[in-house]
Amino acid sequence: MGELMTETQQSPSPAVEGPGPDRGPVLVRQHGPPETQEATAVLERARTSVDPELRRAVESLPAPLRRVALYHFGWEHADGTPAAGNAGKAIRPALVLAATAALGGHRATAVRAAAAVELVHNFTLLHDDVMDRDTTRRHRPTAWAVFGDADAVLTGDALQALAHRLLAGDPHPAASAAAVRLADCVVELCAGQQADTAMERRDPGDITLDEVLAMAEAKTGALLGCACAIGALYAGADDADVEALDAFGREAGLAFQFIDDVIGIWGDPRSTGKPAGADLVARKKSLPVVAALASGTPAAAELAELYRVPYRDGELERTADAVERAGGRDWAQIQAADRMAAALDHLARAVSDPEAAEGLLSLAEFVTRRSG
Amino acid sequence: MGELMTETQQSPSPAVEGPGPDRGPVLVRQHGPPETQEATAVLERARTSVDPELRRAVESLPAPLRRVALYHFGWEHADGTPAAGNAGKAIRPALVLAATAALGGHRATAVRAAAAVELVHNFTLLHDDVMDRDTTRRHRPTAWAVFGDADAVLTGDALQALAHRLLAGDPHPAASAAAVRLADCVVELCAGQQADTAMERRDPGDITLDEVLAMAEAKTGALLGCACAIGALYAGADDADVEALDAFGREAGLAFQFIDDVIGIWGDPRSTGKPAGADLVARKKSLPVVAALASGTPAAAELAELYRVPYRDGELERTADAVERAGGRDWAQIQAADRMAAALDHLARAVSDPEAAEGLLSLAEFVTRRSG
Repeated sequence: MGELMTETQQSPSPAVEGPGPDRGPVLVRQHGPPETQEATAVLERARTSVDPELRRAVESLPAPLRRVALYHFGWEHADGTPAAGNAGKAIRPALVLAATAALGGHRATAVRAAAAVELVHNFTLLHDDVMDRDTTRRHRPTAWAVFGDADAVLTGDALQALAHRLLAGDPHPAASAAAVRLADCVVELCAGQQADTAMERRDPGDITLDEVLAMAEAKTGALLGCACAIGALYAGADDADVEALDAFGREAGLAFQFIDDVIGIWGDPRSTGKPAGADLVARKKSLPVVAALASGTPAAAELAELYRVPYRDGELERTADAVERAGGRDWAQIQAADRMAAALDHLARAVSDPEAAEGLLSLAEFVTRRSG
Repeated sequence: MGELMTETQQSPSPAVEGPGPDRGPVLVRQHGPPETQEATAVLERARTSVDPELRRAVESLPAPLRRVALYHFGWEHADGTPAAGNAGKAIRPALVLAATAALGGHRATAVRAAAAVELVHNFTLLHDDVMDRDTTRRHRPTAWAVFGDADAVLTGDALQALAHRLLAGDPHPAASAAAVRLADCVVELCAGQQADTAMERRDPGDITLDEVLAMAEAKTGALLGCACAIGALYAGADDADVEALDAFGREAGLAFQFIDDVIGIWGDPRSTGKPAGADLVARKKSLPVVAALASGTPAAAELAELYRVPYRDGELERTADAVERAGGRDWAQIQAADRMAAALDHLARAVSDPEAAEGLLSLAEFVTRRSG
């Protein structure tokens, strides 16, 4: 689920300024269509509410772990000097708060829970980066690349503990139900990452569409769903509404994943994301690729042949074309639209007033907006 | 805190029988002095109470993580066939239950909390083994050695989540206070392991006694203290008694660590533990070594000279002798006795009836018994 965090160029956070060895490129603040502007406002408001709680939790860590966490969240440079901060777009905490508001609760009561969800997300980023050997996140070297594997793993462990601690110490009547959901979600996130790392080692032709869909739901959908469900719990919603909000977040998360996978092959129509073809060069078993391989078409056989060996220069167009001819692109785009429609249906079940649903809708559109 | 688990030859669990690629050596059940027999009974009773809860939690994991966890706990062989089980001695869950009983509570009410403590312990073992590249635990290959780093890290993450989930779903009135303590303890365990891994890379002469004591308390004392404190919470004990029980467990844990470190140099008087000198060969900065190096004696300088380079055959006696002449052995033995005395003082503050304290006392004697 690192993908949502890599779109820093569209980040509502101000550009990272100030000198420092890990300074990223200067980012240009973008202004999109009205729904993007609304989402940006929702995200900024969430970041403002949740950051003090998040920061207090991180500051409570013993010094060596605190240092890694402050770096990871962008609040410090690698040398320990303060940084302007670029802790990602706060989509998950914003979903918690927007869900609470949508179901008639008070946003302020759910701030601690929102911080807990964000801590879980960042714990998984720290660990995933170690396992995936990813060297860059949010335009800076990853924590393990700066501090070593052990410090990154241990800081991730500590962030998970802080997340559970926030909920355990929260007197809100929904806190223990939220804690159960969050713990279950962590198990699902771990299972999703396990499936992902295991697939990396497998022959692409042996991977079924069901498997890769289940993996995407566990890695990407589960925490978005959990964030929405926890928000609903903090509004005192009944079980049916909590489950509807969970389903809304899951489906929106899957819609995002389909769009992100399309961008990973054919590039971002807004030219702000990863370069076209990156997933093909890395031989990633993304959703369109697995769908194409499973299509039983001549193009599938051609694609399988290409994927059998590492990427060779100049093959990009041919590979992308094979995925497209095998139906992978159309399928992914239809799936994205279907998932988004399903998300909206789930939301409408729980929140019938369109005005109340507005915050959640703008966030769902925001995470999938690159399709527009 | 792997050390408590390596004494499998004195384990109260039956020897691992049955064929399997990961079968350890056949273990001989030992019968010690009366207090050991009592502790053995306390441990067996705890294992019997807690195992079903622990197993239920592990069985709830998705298949790929469950498989790693079942292997780690000794309930399955690496090939997935059932194993007789050798999940360690259950000292921490036994401390939880004994503390509950000592403070007038019902053991049965604290079984879930005891399982949560054991899950946290095992999460840290899985992660520590990855970081320390330890290849053997409980006479079998470690989980990462069998399943790879990613699976071991992710299963550890999931066990931490399961621990918090058990407490979040526990209707007992002490559950949320216990959850706060357990989460705080996880942060302390992570800080202890961080300090340990960081010390490995440092010059032994730069490490202070305070640092190595703080590390031992965080790595070894914290979870034993937390187990006792949680047990007290489940008995409805007041704050003073909860803190006294925490201090009891911490001091007993430190007493254990001093004794274990003495054994790591001069061997186990009962010849059941690790071979004499193992810690010196590995150039471990154990408590007696750091104390010796800090002594300012001629023997300290000699020891520093020896530790400056990797171990060379035949140096064992000379190195152990230098630690002893520098006062490291005497200091550690006095410290162990002092810590044990402090532990008993803390216990007496909270539990004045010697009969009620008996279970906790026998466990404290058990973990430090190798001094006898």
